[in-house]
Amino acid sequence: MANVILKRQRKKRLEQGHPWIFQSEVDRIEGDITPGDFVDVYNHQGYWLAKGYINPASQIIVRVLTQNPDDELNERFFVERIRQAWAYRERMIPGVRSCRAIYGEADFLPGLIVDKYEEILVVQILTLGMERRKDWILRGLLEVFSPKAVYLRNDVSVRELEGLKQEKGFWYQQAETEVVIEENGVQYIVDIENGQKTGFFFDQRQNRAALRPLIGPETTVLDCFTHTGSFMLNACLYGAKHATAVDISEHAIETAKRNAALNGFTNIDFVVANAFDYLRESVRAGRQWDVVIIDPPAFAKSAYAVPKALRGYKDINLNGLKLVKDGGFFVTSSCSYHVRPHLFQEMVAAAAFDAKKVLRQVYWGGAGYDHPKLLAAEEGDYLKFAIYEVRSRR
Amino acid sequence: MANVILKRQRKKRLEQGHPWIFQSEVDRIEGDITPGDFVDVYNHQGYWLAKGYINPASQIIVRVLTQNPDDELNERFFVERIRQAWAYRERMIPGVRSCRAIYGEADFLPGLIVDKYEEILVVQILTLGMERRKDWILRGLLEVFSPKAVYLRNDVSVRELEGLKQEKGFWYQQAETEVVIEENGVQYIVDIENGQKTGFFFDQRQNRAALRPLIGPETTVLDCFTHTGSFMLNACLYGAKHATAVDISEHAIETAKRNAALNGFTNIDFVVANAFDYLRESVRAGRQWDVVIIDPPAFAKSAYAVPKALRGYKDINLNGLKLVKDGGFFVTSSCSYHVRPHLFQEMVAAAAFDAKKVLRQVYWGGAGYDHPKLLAAEEGDYLKFAIYEVRSRR
Repeated sequence: MANVILKRQRKKRLEQGHPWIFQSEVDRIEGDITPGDFVDVYNHQGYWLAKGYINPASQIIVRVLTQNPDDELNERFFVERIRQAWAYRERMIPGVRSCRAIYGEADFLPGLIVDKYEEILVVQILTLGMERRKDWILRGLLEVFSPKAVYLRNDVSVRELEGLKQEKGFWYQQAETEVVIEENGVQYIVDIENGQKTGFFFDQRQNRAALRPLIGPETTVLDCFTHTGSFMLNACLYGAKHATAVDISEHAIETAKRNAALNGFTNIDFVVANAFDYLRESVRAGRQWDVVIIDPPAFAKSAYAVPKALRGYKDINLNGLKLVKDGGFFVTSSCSYHVRPHLFQEMVAAAAFDAKKVLRQVYWGGAGYDHPKLLAAEEGDYLKFAIYEVRSRR
Repeated sequence: MANVILKRQRKKRLEQGHPWIFQSEVDRIEGDITPGDFVDVYNHQGYWLAKGYINPASQIIVRVLTQNPDDELNERFFVERIRQAWAYRERMIPGVRSCRAIYGEADFLPGLIVDKYEEILVVQILTLGMERRKDWILRGLLEVFSPKAVYLRNDVSVRELEGLKQEKGFWYQQAETEVVIEENGVQYIVDIENGQKTGFFFDQRQNRAALRPLIGPETTVLDCFTHTGSFMLNACLYGAKHATAVDISEHAIETAKRNAALNGFTNIDFVVANAFDYLRESVRAGRQWDVVIIDPPAFAKSAYAVPKALRGYKDINLNGLKLVKDGGFFVTSSCSYHVRPHLFQEMVAAAAFDAKKVLRQVYWGGAGYDHPKLLAAEEGDYLKFAIYEVRSRR
């Protein structure tokens, strides 16, 4: 194994537990390397720090696999990491059958994402270092999960930064590409072939469950950006009187309808509309709901996009707040990492000011147990989710 | 009612939903006032903003009771606010019998704290404005809660800032001053007469419940600053093999012992010790636990005290982390408002760096449902609570 020697002057990110080494931190590489090789990482004084895999074509030249010198990087190591990731989910979410099973860096397997949909695994391999260990990974997945089939959703552009081509399709066995899963007692049809990302967003599991105390037999719910219906379906499960589900995508609304039918929920209006427009028009029409939910996609994909994103978030939060009956609840979220929690709260506060509402926070959440976060890797702290009780002021 | 006219130049705190008006924001007072009177609040253009009560002796000259001009400030108003506060708890914590029932400003009743211990209410009246409405408050409490007895814990120094004397004792009926309550399925003896604050800290209810997935039949637990044992008792309930409970107060440990006996838990070592010393000595002795819990009292009572407080927090977090078995969990908290969440996380990260541990955050929480927060009143956002999975690094 070649050695990567770091510069003297650098932030001690690695020692803090961050698993990335950037090109700019490397002083020299001792020994020959082929992209994707395992390497040892040393500080400028020759003190061993970590093992990982290298890709000189990536700005993140090394991704760390271990900071324990006793670990050997072989198939057993990969299988053991996969086993630990699954043991963690089974511990934190008793009885879980569908969830994010492996979450890259946060499961000490950088570049590998695995979502488990009942007995089907959907995998994303995002780096060359992981691509080269595909055989180990597959054998590990089979050993730990005994899945019926494994599907690759490698249709992601980041692979091209690593010199890898995009692809998708079954990797192990064949099965239907629609899978029915259950989360919080709600059933969903997941389209593993054409759904967004790998087909479903598990990160809001605990936040969806947090709707429960808001919902009574007389509660009406508006769910904007409903996608395939997850929040409003939870509200229906908890006994809502009526839900309105809005999404711009006809395909998403079709899936939300199928999901509602699957669960036997009939008290839902489905609306194909731009949520920005729908919210504004509902304010104009004087409509009101007991609970208004806004779970938009990421508006800020970069730090540069934050000001514009905040204007977008404020627009929907402002109108959303106006639609909440006095004493009702406003449920709002942002999955843009670059909109940091304090910016998100400031945005909500500004919207409340303009809407002439006084807000009381009753719940604050992030991503759930199957999306743990390395303390040192702030990038992982992307999801903001809040529930506010809403009162009018003059 | 007299009118309080605010200055032109001020932060629009009130319009943002913050319920305090400072002396420095007041332009003039029109009409005669007696301290504690209700007043109307207007902006400099004569636009009505709020009603509240006034105390010219306090830096917070007006505390706002309503921003709805239709509200009349009378006994019905107070009773209705009390009723709403309790309805909110019953909604958010189904079946609750013991909790913080009224949380001052966050329940739109500034200066009034009520903790419910089964059928006993313990009340703190912190302001002159509330002191003058004691009769309304008592009648409201009797109407909403039908308590067996009501106890006043007005032995708090902030009352003196309002020109009120300290006092404690039964306010309505008499009862035992020890009450047995249940929270998360654990029973506690609460000393309403001499316990800290009103006798029990309810704010960590949900965080204590978050221990559940960490605990298995082989799990050993260290609980530092255990006070009357709440965290370790939850760990015992969830099936821990053994717990070690440390507190500097002999009286606290005696109560923790009685609480353990009440619940039938026998697998506990009780240690009367300074937790700082105990942690350091345990590191020296090479002791290890599967789960280490640190829930200290507030170290920073002012912004000025933050640097020293952070040194204290880091000391116990550093040693606490060293005591966690590889792959185990570290549970850490701070209730100092002035140690803001980012400072708390930086402190933990610095401790992890020094302890040579890599931390993975699996849970982040604040105060529970019975401690809601006004979005505009940052002061209410005091509690930080985190669970990390701990791995060693070289």
